[in-house]
Amino acid sequence: MPRLYHFPLSPFCRKVRLVMAEKRIECELAEERYWEREPEFLKRNPAGKVPVLSIDGMNLSESAAICEYLEETRPDPPLLPDGPAERHEARRLADWFDGKFHEEASSRLLRERATKKLMKRGGPDSSDVREGLRAVGVHIDYMDGLLERRRWLAGSFLSLADFAAAAHFSALDYLDVVDWDRSESVKLWYARIKSRRAFRSVLADSVPGLAPSEQYAELDF
Amino acid sequence: MPRLYHFPLSPFCRKVRLVMAEKRIECELAEERYWEREPEFLKRNPAGKVPVLSIDGMNLSESAAICEYLEETRPDPPLLPDGPAERHEARRLADWFDGKFHEEASSRLLRERATKKLMKRGGPDSSDVREGLRAVGVHIDYMDGLLERRRWLAGSFLSLADFAAAAHFSALDYLDVVDWDRSESVKLWYARIKSRRAFRSVLADSVPGLAPSEQYAELDF
Repeated sequence: MPRLYHFPLSPFCRKVRLVMAEKRIECELAEERYWEREPEFLKRNPAGKVPVLSIDGMNLSESAAICEYLEETRPDPPLLPDGPAERHEARRLADWFDGKFHEEASSRLLRERATKKLMKRGGPDSSDVREGLRAVGVHIDYMDGLLERRRWLAGSFLSLADFAAAAHFSALDYLDVVDWDRSESVKLWYARIKSRRAFRSVLADSVPGLAPSEQYAELDF
Repeated sequence: MPRLYHFPLSPFCRKVRLVMAEKRIECELAEERYWEREPEFLKRNPAGKVPVLSIDGMNLSESAAICEYLEETRPDPPLLPDGPAERHEARRLADWFDGKFHEEASSRLLRERATKKLMKRGGPDSSDVREGLRAVGVHIDYMDGLLERRRWLAGSFLSLADFAAAAHFSALDYLDVVDWDRSESVKLWYARIKSRRAFRSVLADSVPGLAPSEQYAELDF
């Protein structure tokens, strides 16, 4: 059985978990304290990052490359649409969340509200938290614009873009830092993807020393 | 004719330029002062980043997604190998350079040695420069290990991984911050890719107010 080395609150690990679950690929989860840089782990991924997916006799790393691999080897159901323009749009948005959204919003909030606490590295920096919260709002507005004319983020097709975005939002929702009242469309989009079977394992997550928000596992939030 | 909105020293723009040139796709270059956030530019890419490629009636953004689009619509010559495992390895390494290498090395050195000067935002922070230089060394050692048993970074096949890496290294070489004596294999790899026809436009770059290093355009450096 494939094994995923992961850290529960990492949006990149969550994306791979969601993609695997949507494709009904059974998988064993192994929590990795990647910051301890164990030699065994560095052998699996010299980048020292999670996720690492042990599958088909290999150790795969880099979450976007892992998702492309799963799409090529387990194409059912497809998470990239058919045409090159539509595929570009799905990949562009997945990269948007893993790049821009992560840099401006989720990396800041996860560091200030979770990692520092878990790793005992001091209290949150309130200006960083404020910056992160502000950025989440700006991104929600962008998504709101997309969802005005689309059922899913990249179009009519549920794609990698939705799972990438939902991976970041679910980690932030665990920390209770998403203002769901800001956009009805974004809230409905999240409720729709959150109620998929693929989301169950992620919603069952519980990080010792860091309780999830009240609505975290609620489908009707 | 396709038009690429770019900034000469951006490794992400360079990667797209190299990939297009390798595929012999003619393209008009338009320099974009993306940090001025002109409304016209933000319409093309709400992320406010370069590169943006206007092609086939669309504005494409996010360099990895652009490269996948070009690979799907202009597959000759292919820059991803055939098998899924080999394709994963090429994508993993492209992501390695655009993610880890950028974060640890090229973003720091470009900011401290180029952007600050061009945008008149003060002098370089010497500890950041030192950290960046140290990181370049660590990455060269990793590449050296790969190239011990491979002709190109991802295997026997010249791929996106090489163009991503060469895009970052060429930007750093412009700034004269690469210690080419650290690894004979890496130096030979760079000499090999640098002497390709696809590299010509990049080697002709000249940024006003920032002269390239002496060896920048030398094929025998």
